[in-house]
Amino acid sequence: MPDALYEKHQDTLKKARKTIASREYWSPYPESPRAYGEEAPKNGEETFESRIGKRFALDQAADDWSAGGETSAYGRELGVTYPVTTVAALLDNSQAAADPWGKAPVKHRSGVCMEILDRLGQNSFEMAHAVMQTTGQSFLMAFQAGGPHALDRGLEAVAYAHEAAVSLPKHMQWEKPQGKRDPIVLNKTWRLRPAGIAVTIGVSTFPTWNGYPGIFASLATGNPVIIKPHPATIMPLALFVETARGVLSDAGYDPNVVQLAVDTPAHPIAKDLVMDPRVKLVDYTGGSAFGDWLEANATHAEVFTEKAGVNSVILDSAEDLKGVFRNLSVSMTMYGGQMCTTPQNVYVPRSGMRVAGEEVSYDDVVAGFTGAIAGLLSDDDRASDILGAIKDAASVDRMAVAAASGEVLLESREIKNSLFPDAVVHTPVVVAADATDKETYMREMFGPVIYVIATDSTKQSLELATESASRQGAITWLVYSTDTTVQDAAEDAAVEAGVSIAFNLTGGLFVNQSAAFSDFHVTGANPAGNASLTDPAFIAKRFRVIGVRKPA
Amino acid sequence: MPDALYEKHQDTLKKARKTIASREYWSPYPESPRAYGEEAPKNGEETFESRIGKRFALDQAADDWSAGGETSAYGRELGVTYPVTTVAALLDNSQAAADPWGKAPVKHRSGVCMEILDRLGQNSFEMAHAVMQTTGQSFLMAFQAGGPHALDRGLEAVAYAHEAAVSLPKHMQWEKPQGKRDPIVLNKTWRLRPAGIAVTIGVSTFPTWNGYPGIFASLATGNPVIIKPHPATIMPLALFVETARGVLSDAGYDPNVVQLAVDTPAHPIAKDLVMDPRVKLVDYTGGSAFGDWLEANATHAEVFTEKAGVNSVILDSAEDLKGVFRNLSVSMTMYGGQMCTTPQNVYVPRSGMRVAGEEVSYDDVVAGFTGAIAGLLSDDDRASDILGAIKDAASVDRMAVAAASGEVLLESREIKNSLFPDAVVHTPVVVAADATDKETYMREMFGPVIYVIATDSTKQSLELATESASRQGAITWLVYSTDTTVQDAAEDAAVEAGVSIAFNLTGGLFVNQSAAFSDFHVTGANPAGNASLTDPAFIAKRFRVIGVRKPA
Repeated sequence: MPDALYEKHQDTLKKARKTIASREYWSPYPESPRAYGEEAPKNGEETFESRIGKRFALDQAADDWSAGGETSAYGRELGVTYPVTTVAALLDNSQAAADPWGKAPVKHRSGVCMEILDRLGQNSFEMAHAVMQTTGQSFLMAFQAGGPHALDRGLEAVAYAHEAAVSLPKHMQWEKPQGKRDPIVLNKTWRLRPAGIAVTIGVSTFPTWNGYPGIFASLATGNPVIIKPHPATIMPLALFVETARGVLSDAGYDPNVVQLAVDTPAHPIAKDLVMDPRVKLVDYTGGSAFGDWLEANATHAEVFTEKAGVNSVILDSAEDLKGVFRNLSVSMTMYGGQMCTTPQNVYVPRSGMRVAGEEVSYDDVVAGFTGAIAGLLSDDDRASDILGAIKDAASVDRMAVAAASGEVLLESREIKNSLFPDAVVHTPVVVAADATDKETYMREMFGPVIYVIATDSTKQSLELATESASRQGAITWLVYSTDTTVQDAAEDAAVEAGVSIAFNLTGGLFVNQSAAFSDFHVTGANPAGNASLTDPAFIAKRFRVIGVRKPA
Repeated sequence: MPDALYEKHQDTLKKARKTIASREYWSPYPESPRAYGEEAPKNGEETFESRIGKRFALDQAADDWSAGGETSAYGRELGVTYPVTTVAALLDNSQAAADPWGKAPVKHRSGVCMEILDRLGQNSFEMAHAVMQTTGQSFLMAFQAGGPHALDRGLEAVAYAHEAAVSLPKHMQWEKPQGKRDPIVLNKTWRLRPAGIAVTIGVSTFPTWNGYPGIFASLATGNPVIIKPHPATIMPLALFVETARGVLSDAGYDPNVVQLAVDTPAHPIAKDLVMDPRVKLVDYTGGSAFGDWLEANATHAEVFTEKAGVNSVILDSAEDLKGVFRNLSVSMTMYGGQMCTTPQNVYVPRSGMRVAGEEVSYDDVVAGFTGAIAGLLSDDDRASDILGAIKDAASVDRMAVAAASGEVLLESREIKNSLFPDAVVHTPVVVAADATDKETYMREMFGPVIYVIATDSTKQSLELATESASRQGAITWLVYSTDTTVQDAAEDAAVEAGVSIAFNLTGGLFVNQSAAFSDFHVTGANPAGNASLTDPAFIAKRFRVIGVRKPA
């Protein structure tokens, strides 16, 4: 069967391998819900609803059932419990499953990974509901980011892993001339050796989009993976584990190649898991404190982190200021600022902006910006669709801290979600800061908090954004400037700061969005994370090469 | 000029990039001293001699001159002093030199690297004398391993780095369909961002062969490099620094892209250097204690280590036992066992070996082995050529420890080197151990120490070698067996142990030898080191990619 799986999916894999080189647009998993047929939405919703209040059965050794610390950002009672496997059993089962998986031909493993992606792709509606309810994303974002876009990211990792694994010749004859004597001739082969047990530590907001790259990179390079979801957002990764174990079993592998590790906030198990010397790979997405701890302490393993950062918008000049604000009002409010790519800080020169040849004062810029946000979110239903719901109560607390830290330019408004009355929904608070108030704005205020920072000049804006990225990390910069000198300076600053940069987005593409096969997510070059999704470094140390030499 | 350098060397670079994929034999730098013309040997020796007792002038900011702790293994008085630059100045100068080098086009950097290799290649005789005198290698080994083979390894790293750096499209237009609306079109570029300051910590035995890969990998990916040689072996890397700074200056770059950092055993500076947060890359070759410390403590940097290990020979069966011993007697004695690839332990079943259909008893195997070593080294001049000289007095002490730890099968003999009467030269001591004496033989006894270990079976031999590799690390295994079942089991064990394996070497190739472009040196998969020379993982994190997006 593994051969058949590879054959079934080889065209998709070939296209993926081609696209990671060309960086062209491509998405094999349709992002439009309409592409899935008439029955799919209803079926997906029903399957999701059938899991509510029940045990989430996995054929995994377990002593108990636990709901972890799972919450619905929309205020629903989920009541789903998951099998609880001890850390020792997880590691032993993983080790026991490792050898046949590690020795399987690359094509077999890639075939299994592709089949997992394919089956997940058939259940993107169920996944969408699971992601939506747990994370607080709107349905459309949950569908796209939790389903097809996450699958794109998983496939991208499989493509990189496959590419890396097949880059060596399988067998070759090595011939070294010896002058007049006979040459030395050796038959050489190279065997791939997986690194060891991999642990993925999931995030509460984008569990599949951020989780799949590391999971599939480890799987495709032959490592068994233990998946420890964020205790507050378990179901999306449990769905993944269910599907993956099914495909593994069908293909004749031990399903313990993929296991679920559920814990609670009161009794976290991540440290116990990763500090076992058998664990050689750790993928983490989440807050900086634990990410920093992993980088400093799990030195027996290769640690890949995506942590927190403070993203910046730099306003210098524009042709179409309305377009600027239209774009910013969406990118800075969608999902209530709970994306790691959401801009938090908007730097504006006190002298204002040059717009289509005219000077626009600082006050007018600020008024235009806050007006665009207020306008976009004026209707509660539309605001609900854009904002989703707040996952973590700490984000609400941060809004109050922000509001107390400076002049409030736009107050936060609480929104009633007509379908989910218990959902916590807030429009962002927009607060003014001066360039000198570094302690105020040069920190991550995850959630619906926006700072507008008055600076001496665009030059200072860039310096502050660079300092902020170097200190606190950053994933995205968005610069509005019609001046190519400023653009070049901004690009150089972004390189120094290690931040991806976009310019002059006014249309339907938002800086938050990172497209698989083309955009690298996080650079690995500042405190926002040490890994990049997905580059060769994300793959390279997940396996090793063992040389075999025999005289010909 | 940088363009001209790339053009000058582009054919060599192209061939190198092709060869790291094909893994064929290739060496652009001739390993035969005869290939360098009649004048080269004399010129090289004269240039080397002209440095003795003098200041080694480098145009590098310096407050003082120091001989470090440099010693000649051949007992000569070298008396060479090197400029001493403070750690703070080294780091500041490195940082100041970083930006133009990091922003240079990949081709320019590759051209500079290739020119450095080329100029070094013209001075391989001088390098040979410097390596020979400092490390204790024989002249031919010093010439080959210190010169052309080290240059091969450097070029290999440049090829991998160039390949990695040019793998992205420079500019591309990304077009995402939007149904009936206009597509979203972006112009995308990607900028490479070097990791930061690189520090190479050199080893006393093969300073160039082990040093060049990390140095050239860092340079070619745009990082400035500070080179801190082992205090006892400075001159070979000082010669590199001199050449590199010359090429950098000629090409219009700040020569501080490459700097020499000299210290003494009494006042080591490696920790101060690497713990500076500006240091992002550390390449280390040397003992396990400091390598382990670096891996656990320099967590702000990417650390690449080549540490110590215990290499094994497993005797099972053979067609030509004389050929086995002929090969082993050379590989286990050359350079007095001071290669990190030298086998230390020979596992022999108590039941003996099957040789060409006949049983050969354990005692006869041992007698044949020790006899071959004694015979090879019976003539003092030939023995001197093979053994070289002992670099570190601790190796002599270990011989005594080994001799006291079990039955001595072959006593060590002190050899007089007729050219260098103060050279310390010893034939190896061969000591018997039982499989159960793990504390005795499952430790690295660097230098002229060989253990012959009596086991219950080849199966047990493989188990013990695997345990040894997992505990102490190992770089090479050499298995003699005519039985394909045993060969397959050995190969699987090598994969588990993370050790490169060779079979049935009886001719002119020795297990110690690792050919650039084809063999990976160290797997990174056991305690002998976390890096492999040279695989994509050795390159991947030395730079990062910054994405730039602009609407089309």
